Amino acid sequence: MARVSQEHLDARRRQIIDGAARCFARDGFHGTSMQGVLKEVGLSAGAVYRYFSGKEDLIAAIADEAVGGVRRAFEEAARVSPPPPPDVLIGRVARSLFENTGRGMSRQAYAGLIVQVWSETLRSERLAATLVEAFGGLRAAWTELVDVYRDIGLLDSDVSADHVARTLIATAQGFIAQLAMFGDAEPEVLENGLRGLMSMDLQKIS
Amino acid sequence: MARVSQEHLDARRRQIIDGAARCFARDGFHGTSMQGVLKEVGLSAGAVYRYFSGKEDLIAAIADEAVGGVRRAFEEAARVSPPPPPDVLIGRVARSLFENTGRGMSRQAYAGLIVQVWSETLRSERLAATLVEAFGGLRAAWTELVDVYRDIGLLDSDVSADHVARTLIATAQGFIAQLAMFGDAEPEVLENGLRGLMSMDLQKIS
Repeated sequence: MARVSQEHLDARRRQIIDGAARCFARDGFHGTSMQGVLKEVGLSAGAVYRYFSGKEDLIAAIADEAVGGVRRAFEEAARVSPPPPPDVLIGRVARSLFENTGRGMSRQAYAGLIVQVWSETLRSERLAATLVEAFGGLRAAWTELVDVYRDIGLLDSDVSADHVARTLIATAQGFIAQLAMFGDAEPEVLENGLRGLMSMDLQKIS
Repeated sequence: MARVSQEHLDARRRQIIDGAARCFARDGFHGTSMQGVLKEVGLSAGAVYRYFSGKEDLIAAIADEAVGGVRRAFEEAARVSPPPPPDVLIGRVARSLFENTGRGMSRQAYAGLIVQVWSETLRSERLAATLVEAFGGLRAAWTELVDVYRDIGLLDSDVSADHVARTLIATAQGFIAQLAMFGDAEPEVLENGLRGLMSMDLQKIS
């Protein structure tokens, strides 16, 4: 039996995920068949099913990658001490989220894929579990960071760090939704918008 | 031929939309058949097709309602002069968004329905057009409001009002996504989170 290198296995896996992602982005998760995926990647059923048991397995792999990308982007940006303020950090996360889409897919198509994954968590317990875990991790990491912001005097309020963390995550999620639906969301929009919000001083009008 | 009052027609239409919304929230848009909707609402095909031509028509009606609800909530909250600050305003919008779900549906299920609509805009030009128009209207209205915030001295920055408006809309969209996927998003989270962001003073750390 021929030995197959890990490199070869990884490349083959990559090829399948990229092809499936293109199909899902184009035809939707429900509008895509495994036959369609096989045709897109140009491999036999035997070759593909060796890696993935079906559509749900493929979309879980894509969700894992997207989630992993966000986590890495966040961790890299937050490694600096003191951490950059939220607008800069969120801008970096928004930018790097789309850096590794390299599967012949536009930013808008990739954002659309993420929104499809969200929608699919309502039906798939497995996907829901993946997203719940990822959200929990991000939320904890951002909460720690918001505590640092408070320690260095940037956050001048006794509001819950968890609430600020979730609101920051919400801006990124809303950015993805806008990009998917309307196409023209640049990371600058979010960066400038957050900077504007941070410039607001309630004491001036109270 | 018996005359049918407008009231009766409206109530019937309401009954069909509510039943369809329950089906979509439970089984997903793709997992729901018109047969399933007929069974849920307890009406004949003739009665239902008099109001709606099919699933897409039904989901468009639900999308229109959700969009109209957001718009009304926003307009009501922004009618006060001077307008309440963004955290209060967004809190009101988040609260009233779910006030009219009265179709035996939880807030989480309703949020899930909205995320499904987002996902479906990627496939349906009609839904995409509805959402693009609604987003355009909201964006223009919030941009005007951000200009008011600048005029009254609350926004202390020269960033684009449109960018701040889109970021505020993004927080509400992200809130809906979190509610749909994780279930425990209360409007207070967003309100407190925004207040925390607004308390951040970049000059303190620069």
